[in-house]
Amino acid sequence: MNVDLREQLKQKKQAYVQDEILSSAATLFAEKGFRAITITDVAARLGYTKSVVYYYFKNKNEILWQIFNRMYEKYQATIDDVLSQDLPADEALHRILHSHALHVMKQKDWTAIYFRDESELEPEQRLLSRKRKREYDAKIELVYQRGINEQKFKDVPPHIAISGFMGMCNWLHTWFNEEGTHTPEQIADYYCDLMSGGYLQ
Amino acid sequence: MNVDLREQLKQKKQAYVQDEILSSAATLFAEKGFRAITITDVAARLGYTKSVVYYYFKNKNEILWQIFNRMYEKYQATIDDVLSQDLPADEALHRILHSHALHVMKQKDWTAIYFRDESELEPEQRLLSRKRKREYDAKIELVYQRGINEQKFKDVPPHIAISGFMGMCNWLHTWFNEEGTHTPEQIADYYCDLMSGGYLQ
Repeated sequence: MNVDLREQLKQKKQAYVQDEILSSAATLFAEKGFRAITITDVAARLGYTKSVVYYYFKNKNEILWQIFNRMYEKYQATIDDVLSQDLPADEALHRILHSHALHVMKQKDWTAIYFRDESELEPEQRLLSRKRKREYDAKIELVYQRGINEQKFKDVPPHIAISGFMGMCNWLHTWFNEEGTHTPEQIADYYCDLMSGGYLQ
Repeated sequence: MNVDLREQLKQKKQAYVQDEILSSAATLFAEKGFRAITITDVAARLGYTKSVVYYYFKNKNEILWQIFNRMYEKYQATIDDVLSQDLPADEALHRILHSHALHVMKQKDWTAIYFRDESELEPEQRLLSRKRKREYDAKIELVYQRGINEQKFKDVPPHIAISGFMGMCNWLHTWFNEEGTHTPEQIADYYCDLMSGGYLQ
């Protein structure tokens, strides 16, 4: 085995363990709250000693911050992908809301932390996180404004409409149940129908 | 002054101070988080010593629990009032959602606590609080089901539709700003239009 290949394998393993620690921590933080959980709890859940966790993360705050970063990257990647396609406003908004709702349900624990535990971040991290969320919403508001200009969407101030739809989707983390009667796809479809067409027949 | 009148005045004053303590505590809990606040902080904000607060509340948990009880009573009173009027399903749902959205905006701090700090309650309180929230949602779901039966509402499973609308309204506590460009009434009107008619023209 040459040095390069060995280095590649090492990096792959490290990325794998890092993901594993983040997932385990996210589940524990979501279940018991960030403050109640120690690095020892995170390690024990994976059968590691806490020194393994400390090899990858300086402290509990760094784990939390990486969870925020991963969520942010995931949401950004989806919206940038949709926006790069130059779709009509109605098609673009539908795709954005549908995939946002799906992400919330498929990463319920991560989303709970992303929207509930911002106050546990360091002040600078908190400011950056708020700025990122505002930028994300602003991108969707521009799509909404385009839909108004094209006379496709109701003339509601975009920040009011989008905050409402984000609320509807983000709230899913409080009630969506993997063992419930409907799949995430079915729920996202219902939500998109309600948001675009309303509950009246 | 006779004894009865003196007793009445005393009770009025006590109710007033109790409300004052709850409001002050709600503001502090919402701003800094339940765990970061002490009884001394709550008292100091009102210019009282902590013994005054302890005269009315056994401990911090009792303050939190009273905040939950007040919120629950407020939401229940509104929904029971609407339901007692035997309105058509569309009119009833509109009024329920409109007043729910208004309550969230007008008592933003209390709502933030009601939906964020349930994990800080004692286990029995937490169970009771969840049961009450489920019962509240269930009452609205029955209205939705009636609207489906009368072929006024889209045939979406009521718990999915109502969880969505509650999410849209409850999320207001994360972004509504008293000094923003729109009044609570204007926002509640926009929300009701979007929920009933959707964003498409």
